[in-house]
Amino acid sequence: MAEPNHPAHETREHALQRIHELTQPTGAAVPSQVPTHWYNVAADLPEPVPPHLHPGTNQPLQPEDLEPLFAKALIEQEVSTERYIEIPQTVREIYAQWRPSPLVRALRLERALGTKAHIYYKYEGGSPAGSHKPNTAVAQAYYNAIEGVTKLTTETGAGQWGASLSLAGALLGLEVEVWQVRASYDAKPYRRAQMEVYGGTCHPSPSTLTEAGRAMLAKDPNTTGSLGMAISEAVEVAAGDPHAHYALGSVLNHVMLHQSVIGEEAMQQLTELGESVPDVIFGCAGGGSNLAGLTFPFMGRNLREGTTTRLVACEPAACPSLTQGEYRYDFGDVAGLTPLLKMYTLGRDFVPPAIHAGGLRYHGMSPIVSHAVHLGLMDAIAVAQNDAFAAGVLFARAEGIIPAPESTHAVAGAIAHARQAADGEVIVLGLSGNGVLDLPAYEQYV
Amino acid sequence: MAEPNHPAHETREHALQRIHELTQPTGAAVPSQVPTHWYNVAADLPEPVPPHLHPGTNQPLQPEDLEPLFAKALIEQEVSTERYIEIPQTVREIYAQWRPSPLVRALRLERALGTKAHIYYKYEGGSPAGSHKPNTAVAQAYYNAIEGVTKLTTETGAGQWGASLSLAGALLGLEVEVWQVRASYDAKPYRRAQMEVYGGTCHPSPSTLTEAGRAMLAKDPNTTGSLGMAISEAVEVAAGDPHAHYALGSVLNHVMLHQSVIGEEAMQQLTELGESVPDVIFGCAGGGSNLAGLTFPFMGRNLREGTTTRLVACEPAACPSLTQGEYRYDFGDVAGLTPLLKMYTLGRDFVPPAIHAGGLRYHGMSPIVSHAVHLGLMDAIAVAQNDAFAAGVLFARAEGIIPAPESTHAVAGAIAHARQAADGEVIVLGLSGNGVLDLPAYEQYV
Repeated sequence: MAEPNHPAHETREHALQRIHELTQPTGAAVPSQVPTHWYNVAADLPEPVPPHLHPGTNQPLQPEDLEPLFAKALIEQEVSTERYIEIPQTVREIYAQWRPSPLVRALRLERALGTKAHIYYKYEGGSPAGSHKPNTAVAQAYYNAIEGVTKLTTETGAGQWGASLSLAGALLGLEVEVWQVRASYDAKPYRRAQMEVYGGTCHPSPSTLTEAGRAMLAKDPNTTGSLGMAISEAVEVAAGDPHAHYALGSVLNHVMLHQSVIGEEAMQQLTELGESVPDVIFGCAGGGSNLAGLTFPFMGRNLREGTTTRLVACEPAACPSLTQGEYRYDFGDVAGLTPLLKMYTLGRDFVPPAIHAGGLRYHGMSPIVSHAVHLGLMDAIAVAQNDAFAAGVLFARAEGIIPAPESTHAVAGAIAHARQAADGEVIVLGLSGNGVLDLPAYEQYV
Repeated sequence: MAEPNHPAHETREHALQRIHELTQPTGAAVPSQVPTHWYNVAADLPEPVPPHLHPGTNQPLQPEDLEPLFAKALIEQEVSTERYIEIPQTVREIYAQWRPSPLVRALRLERALGTKAHIYYKYEGGSPAGSHKPNTAVAQAYYNAIEGVTKLTTETGAGQWGASLSLAGALLGLEVEVWQVRASYDAKPYRRAQMEVYGGTCHPSPSTLTEAGRAMLAKDPNTTGSLGMAISEAVEVAAGDPHAHYALGSVLNHVMLHQSVIGEEAMQQLTELGESVPDVIFGCAGGGSNLAGLTFPFMGRNLREGTTTRLVACEPAACPSLTQGEYRYDFGDVAGLTPLLKMYTLGRDFVPPAIHAGGLRYHGMSPIVSHAVHLGLMDAIAVAQNDAFAAGVLFARAEGIIPAPESTHAVAGAIAHARQAADGEVIVLGLSGNGVLDLPAYEQYV
């Protein structure tokens, strides 16, 4: 029987000591290509991002409003306008296990397409959890750990985020409790097992463990759940436990910040390859964190230096917040427990059609990504599921990596563009994760 | 609907043209750390490996005996005693997607164990198929492709090899047909999906598609299959098709040769870290290819230069060919279609207990590994399944990567050694793959 991360009947003093030890650097060598700072696009935007509002007063949130749920360092990052924020050494050491992530010229895909464009992919699927999510999971776990928190709660859809936070909890000694959208909980048992191997606990949502969950089940006992519902449950549990906080895998500003390592590395890697200003970058968009991480450093450079790299958000046609949603204040969850966020939203009660595979199922979109699209700093396109999977299979057979279903939306955007691109045009696509745990969805398509 | 790798009704001329294009280098940059040559331990052994025998005559096999099944270049490699064999540029380019594979100091595991030994892991799970198997799959597919073969057949157990050969088939344009041990075919649908995404075809074995399969089913209609049975089926189909060859994922000398890139890189990486002569190396052993790939370059150095790195094969207690088998000539398959191989064997009819998870289920062991153990150049230990999984969970929670069940045997060997090691002792373990597609086996354990 495996020892748990957090032994039963452990005293709080012992837990804090154990966690303290795990937050210390090990002295591991960190390659110089691993960024030393996160990049904060808020420093370069022509207009500030509209503030999050208190749901009771409709007034801009104060830092203390968030303290029941988030570490102070993360709250500061949420509203910071500093351009660069230093990455703690322990976080850099953990990043160094899979960072810098590879930026690869897709020469075999180019040959298969017969294009003379240069296609590069930035691959985040080599992290232990298989996606970009650990970039922020490790940072969030770290700041909570050094502030005396011993437990994190969260929601997850397809499971990438729940697995990533469970991984971060294992590395830094925190208990992790996850509410997973019921439809995915039933369909994706491997993800649940992944969380459990890391010592996390995973419940289907809605559950009977929370008031919010019980209310949702009373309203519709057969609901397959939604991210908005699962967020309500995780937030409720964190708010009721003085030693627990809540962690969000996307949407919020500090999450976008942590993901900036993707784009910072990509910019450096392209420069080393002599392609420093790509013509266009495609990123998939659900809550927005992979897209923001890859593109914001380039957006900042466009704004500061007048470069003209085009940035394209690729979202699923089945959950089209940017291309079909309204830009307005809305809640991040179904129960209305979160702050009001100014974002493109399909309405917090939106449940994507069951046929839609994988992640990218959130009703809203990162406020900062929404703001950038609203200002015309970034474009958005919607990709149909069959086109996304076709692009994923074409990519897998040419390049070997099976893209995550989420990432196939960016692959489809890039391939469609490449088929009509000019000679030598430089196209970058964000491969946010691998699709190994989503193979049944591929099999249905194939 | 996905386009197949090999369009229906394609003429042979068109297939050869398509495959020819895919075997050409793309001009991709290949890092200097990717080896330019494979290392062949046969050049340094104090006694030659006993030859494979013809099953009809009991005389040493002649190259032409193998030509119905294998590419000429591979047959030459099988009997070569050249120390270094050049890696074709197209193969190096494909290797460069995941090679050099990381050699990582497991500082967080060392801290968890409280050891002052230095533990390194050489991680092969970052390949697109998630294991070391593509190192030989790509090489075998390449040599067959340039010799005019358009189809490969093979067997697979847990599915790592079938997925890897399907990947190689996709990259180089070959049709791939896989017979998977029935027990795994039923229990591991994700692996089958992985093969299909790459355009491969997967049948449960025994199947009704071959004489060998029908005979086995007649004998026991409820058999859960074995690698030996699946080999018989794949060999039968390849032998009956003038444009098809057979590919083996382990056991044979040329497979060990291709895997030598693991150990060559590790030796270079350790030298750069100032730990050029490790005290001990642990590798898991099923058919022997990962173990051989990691350890043979060090064995060769021990023999040539008198270094004393101890090499340890870690096999499952449930399938203990090296520690419990007999060293004698045996068939590689159940039906007796293969040559006779001098190896440690549990007998070709051996079927491991159903409780045994993952791979490492083969009745025999690579002749060259067997020879090395017989000569005392390498040690062997057996690891119980629960101890292996316990080590895997400990490793995952400390280092983030969930090891493949196969690899956990090496992890267990290394951890047991580290708990009693001297300060500064240098321990290397082979992490042959990740366990993402084996999570249900972990869940049963957790």
